Amino acid sequence: MIYSLKAGGKRIRPLLIFAVLDAFGRDPKIGLKPAAAIEMIHTYSLIHDDLPSMDNDDLRRGKPTNHKVFGEAAAILAGDALLTYAFELLAALDPEKASAETKLLLVKELAVSAGAEGMVGGQTADIEAEGKVLNLTELEYIHRNKTGKLLTCSVMMGALLADSDSETLELLRDFSRHIGLAFQIQDDILDIIGMQDKIGKPVGSDVGNQKNTYPALLTLDGAKEKLSEHIQLAKQSLAQTSLNIEMLLQLTDLIAVRDH
Amino acid sequence: MIYSLKAGGKRIRPLLIFAVLDAFGRDPKIGLKPAAAIEMIHTYSLIHDDLPSMDNDDLRRGKPTNHKVFGEAAAILAGDALLTYAFELLAALDPEKASAETKLLLVKELAVSAGAEGMVGGQTADIEAEGKVLNLTELEYIHRNKTGKLLTCSVMMGALLADSDSETLELLRDFSRHIGLAFQIQDDILDIIGMQDKIGKPVGSDVGNQKNTYPALLTLDGAKEKLSEHIQLAKQSLAQTSLNIEMLLQLTDLIAVRDH
Repeated sequence: MIYSLKAGGKRIRPLLIFAVLDAFGRDPKIGLKPAAAIEMIHTYSLIHDDLPSMDNDDLRRGKPTNHKVFGEAAAILAGDALLTYAFELLAALDPEKASAETKLLLVKELAVSAGAEGMVGGQTADIEAEGKVLNLTELEYIHRNKTGKLLTCSVMMGALLADSDSETLELLRDFSRHIGLAFQIQDDILDIIGMQDKIGKPVGSDVGNQKNTYPALLTLDGAKEKLSEHIQLAKQSLAQTSLNIEMLLQLTDLIAVRDH
Repeated sequence: MIYSLKAGGKRIRPLLIFAVLDAFGRDPKIGLKPAAAIEMIHTYSLIHDDLPSMDNDDLRRGKPTNHKVFGEAAAILAGDALLTYAFELLAALDPEKASAETKLLLVKELAVSAGAEGMVGGQTADIEAEGKVLNLTELEYIHRNKTGKLLTCSVMMGALLADSDSETLELLRDFSRHIGLAFQIQDDILDIIGMQDKIGKPVGSDVGNQKNTYPALLTLDGAKEKLSEHIQLAKQSLAQTSLNIEMLLQLTDLIAVRDH
């Protein structure tokens, strides 16, 4: 559990919780345990996704994957325990930081986002789509669930901890959906650009193979346009709130221009 | 998810919740969602335990195991989704049936019982113990965690839903610990008796092989004695409460005399 938690990563989900709390003028520290909980869910999903029967990856963030170090059985169990511990952490949240009602909303938000109709549903669809050519609607379904729901959950958790009104909550939900898709599109673009640097093939040669990506569906320029569209819509949603959105805007730009 | 949930089983964990609610004079129906939640946790653990990298079982309750029907990836994801959905169910419990505080206690109880220091910890220890000869303390550690904690959780959930006082809660916790061990000892005894019927070998031939069981450690008579001891202690704990313990006593006898 600790090996994979400490393997690094961008910590984008925790950052989103902290930035939302900051936008409400609340102490980001209130979000520490929820941030740990969502990072545990993210980490468990990586451990299970890397397994031989799933994506069969040997390396993750430059280190051997969990099952390569500890074996498959231990990797499955470490994932199960991280998933379970996330809910223990939320239930044990300091009463001064969140009321019982708020804590239950966090539990529900996390369970719905991570479960069969969220992250696990997206991963299932992704595995079922292997070797098939998807259209844009199908591709977006996978990403909205596999990665998008947990990013939305981070934003929602921050807002719930800050006792957000429902109008602001919905604007932040819109914001999170756009950055979720932007995040994935930028991932796909980086994949292509990275590949180009590495193997010297012209951009677009990826279109012919069986990987479903935004550039493959929309061309690289089309994907970049789509990315910029979602970033603009995300910022528009933020601008309609009465929050102090500086940190959230910075995070949004970070998602669009990151190089890894 | 549905395939494994509907594969049957004794439903002992739900029965415990209902019997505890009955003992408090409360409507057992209050326990329906928590009972479903705990059965989902139990079912996910069976799906993952049956995987090739774990116990590698092809059959469960006379039917092909989940991964045999749907493949390993889908089985891992079905387990993950069941585990996650259990917490969603608890958080969504009808407010008339449980206060927010009670629901959080249920979430915490389930997470602690099922997680790294409960069921998953027990399963990890069990896998690590493969091929080793254990002493009674080590064997009890595995069973207390792998199967015991979730049985205790069922009893605690019933008591929490019934707003039990803390003294009764502790007596019920003692009760649950004894029936948890009794349950496992009877499992081991049935294993031996079943084997004797099937292959006609004398009782005790199992002692020499690498399976860690109560009869292997204590002889068959010793295990039967230990079983009866735990059943007596379980009943004594019940007798010290002021509850209507009739159904709980019936369940206790069921655990001790069941033939499967």
